[in-house]
Amino acid sequence: MKKTASRNAFYAQSGGVSAVINASACGVIETALRSRPIGKVYAGRHGIIGALTEDLIDVGRESAATIRALRHTPAGAFGSARFKLKGIDQNRAEYERLIEVFRAHNIGYFFYNGGNDSMDTALKVSQIGASLGFPVTCVGVPKTVDNDLPHTDCCPGFGSVAKYVAVSTREAGLDVASMARTSTKVFVLEVMGRHAGWIAAAGGLAGRGPAAPPHLILFPEVPFEQQKFLERVRACVDAYGYCVIVVSEGAAYADGRFLADAGTRDAFGHTQLGGVAPVVANMVREAHGYKYHWAVADYLQRSARHIASRVDVEQAYAVGKAAVELAVKGVNAVMPTIVRKRSKPYRWVIGHVPLAAVANKEKKLPPEYIREDSFGITAACRRYLEPLIAGEAYPPYRDGLPDYVHIRGVAVRRKLKTDFKV
Amino acid sequence: MKKTASRNAFYAQSGGVSAVINASACGVIETALRSRPIGKVYAGRHGIIGALTEDLIDVGRESAATIRALRHTPAGAFGSARFKLKGIDQNRAEYERLIEVFRAHNIGYFFYNGGNDSMDTALKVSQIGASLGFPVTCVGVPKTVDNDLPHTDCCPGFGSVAKYVAVSTREAGLDVASMARTSTKVFVLEVMGRHAGWIAAAGGLAGRGPAAPPHLILFPEVPFEQQKFLERVRACVDAYGYCVIVVSEGAAYADGRFLADAGTRDAFGHTQLGGVAPVVANMVREAHGYKYHWAVADYLQRSARHIASRVDVEQAYAVGKAAVELAVKGVNAVMPTIVRKRSKPYRWVIGHVPLAAVANKEKKLPPEYIREDSFGITAACRRYLEPLIAGEAYPPYRDGLPDYVHIRGVAVRRKLKTDFKV
Repeated sequence: MKKTASRNAFYAQSGGVSAVINASACGVIETALRSRPIGKVYAGRHGIIGALTEDLIDVGRESAATIRALRHTPAGAFGSARFKLKGIDQNRAEYERLIEVFRAHNIGYFFYNGGNDSMDTALKVSQIGASLGFPVTCVGVPKTVDNDLPHTDCCPGFGSVAKYVAVSTREAGLDVASMARTSTKVFVLEVMGRHAGWIAAAGGLAGRGPAAPPHLILFPEVPFEQQKFLERVRACVDAYGYCVIVVSEGAAYADGRFLADAGTRDAFGHTQLGGVAPVVANMVREAHGYKYHWAVADYLQRSARHIASRVDVEQAYAVGKAAVELAVKGVNAVMPTIVRKRSKPYRWVIGHVPLAAVANKEKKLPPEYIREDSFGITAACRRYLEPLIAGEAYPPYRDGLPDYVHIRGVAVRRKLKTDFKV
Repeated sequence: MKKTASRNAFYAQSGGVSAVINASACGVIETALRSRPIGKVYAGRHGIIGALTEDLIDVGRESAATIRALRHTPAGAFGSARFKLKGIDQNRAEYERLIEVFRAHNIGYFFYNGGNDSMDTALKVSQIGASLGFPVTCVGVPKTVDNDLPHTDCCPGFGSVAKYVAVSTREAGLDVASMARTSTKVFVLEVMGRHAGWIAAAGGLAGRGPAAPPHLILFPEVPFEQQKFLERVRACVDAYGYCVIVVSEGAAYADGRFLADAGTRDAFGHTQLGGVAPVVANMVREAHGYKYHWAVADYLQRSARHIASRVDVEQAYAVGKAAVELAVKGVNAVMPTIVRKRSKPYRWVIGHVPLAAVANKEKKLPPEYIREDSFGITAACRRYLEPLIAGEAYPPYRDGLPDYVHIRGVAVRRKLKTDFKV
């Protein structure tokens, strides 16, 4: 019965990866494998590119242990991609190719795990039934460390990077406090979030009160005022002996120029594409002469599964599981969301919204989460953030290192004679 | 009996801090507090400066729980300092001041927790008995993330930074592997170790075999050859699709110039004191055009108590405890060491060496630990390093964050009328 009626499922990862996107994969796959209406479960190698190039992985050939271990393995086990589908009118060939591949492999369920851009892709794929006559049930699975998807209380991936940044800020803050008497007085930590300050805000969880690091946070939502900033740094060093600054990579002047694009040039006159942390640190040194250190966490922050938030891991799994449950009920073109019922104690449930409501939209840090002096977070922001970093979910270790899994990645035999160039 | 015969102990932290220097403090203090010949236990605020300025903390006023919690708290709870005593001939006033403070507070035991420079300070203090007639039993407590003290198999502090770097390299490597198809192809992680490549070598633990990250390590011990390096990066991207590079902050050209001092200037023509990671990343971009990311771990790596090595924590405590045991036996001018009995299974015991044998000396990465092609570690290096990152020693958490302790820091009442300017 099942074999004839069922259609196969396609899952893929898209955009920048996170510490818990594989936990969502685990939720999708474990749920899909035991769902009656779903036949086989395939994954695209490198996101939608895997579908376009008929590069499919037979997830059924992975052991149950491997699938389970995805829950504690960071980054994209199936390969991710930064690839945005154009509109159907602009590139009909891509959609026709998708249908060709889906038809060849009897794919009737499409699960796309990503952020704003990826929800746009999922939305477009959901429309091929109406526009091209090949109905596929599409459900987006939210993932973004940037926490900028609307209509969900938070985004899987964010809680873990938030925990990493809060923990690192607390630890480095203790380091600087130790050294400040004779050495480093200013420490700058650069974190991700080009357009939204959620990750920078998480640094604010490291300490309470004006004396505790971080003393200053620079948000992308707040135009940078150099004079005001430098005065605050000096006041902070005068009062506490040192100053810890968390700066978003997206910190910018009022005219929109990123601080990171400060026109730095190397010895040959080439533009230096650098981080914002060294720019801010040099600014402080030039104004005040303080000895400084700076760090740029970059990929370390979003892949740090070793310090993942347990809440985040659970939510990442839950949205994957919910996506399949929605799809088999026939709900099309939606994305599961996290709905907060209360903050203390933290209670959440899974909801869902239409993909059209989230595609290409960004949720910035609201003004009421930024302290009036613009350099810190409010109590409301802390109430929002704190539950998201709660709990630890340590991976197993072997030889002193996290024992992360690699998939076998057995390719599904190709059925099409044609190649497709992406 | 005890009160009249006993002399007090002085403990202080010196140089760059680590994830486990407070575990050594815990070992010193817990052992000293129950040692019959030792009266009170004092700590210097900010290293030797605390002694010179009579700025002493009465450790007996801390709760047993606080002292115990030092074992899981990173950085220097008593404040550290970069301050090197001159020779007795060059600055006799400093030594006379030390004796004045020691005499006023009946200090007969001096425990100094630091690296090469600090062992030199401890050695000099150990000589004031012979040269100035005020005998103090001095024992150094080894600490340096750089792992460059001679005559000890390893240095407390190193194992934890090694674990951090190995874990981070493994995690970021998975991230880049996910993204390389359409985005980042080269990732550069800058780690500490200005003169010795031990920390960079630890990155090599992240993977085995040529396909696993890190694909290239740049050691300070190996003169940088740009052409050879760029060729290897290209070969790596061609073979595996991406390339992960761990670079020591001390990577340098054959003529001794650091790569980090590449003459980078900001828009105003001021020299940019930057990291080596962006320099290397730009080099790759200019030669090959690959999209890249880079990270500078800086203080994050040495304060990362959340991912400390259990072996490292145990050794840090053990050298602190041993220092006190040696001192009360009357052994002067020594430093406890870690003696490796075997690597697999790992067995170690505590030994000791004269301070004169370690002061101001640096142990570099030996040639047999660097792979013949110069871009990786050998099996012998792996055998050496692997036991040092073994085991986890997670701190307790509260509200999603490590629950690190702050000392009360009750000051000892001053007895001297004079101030001392340092």
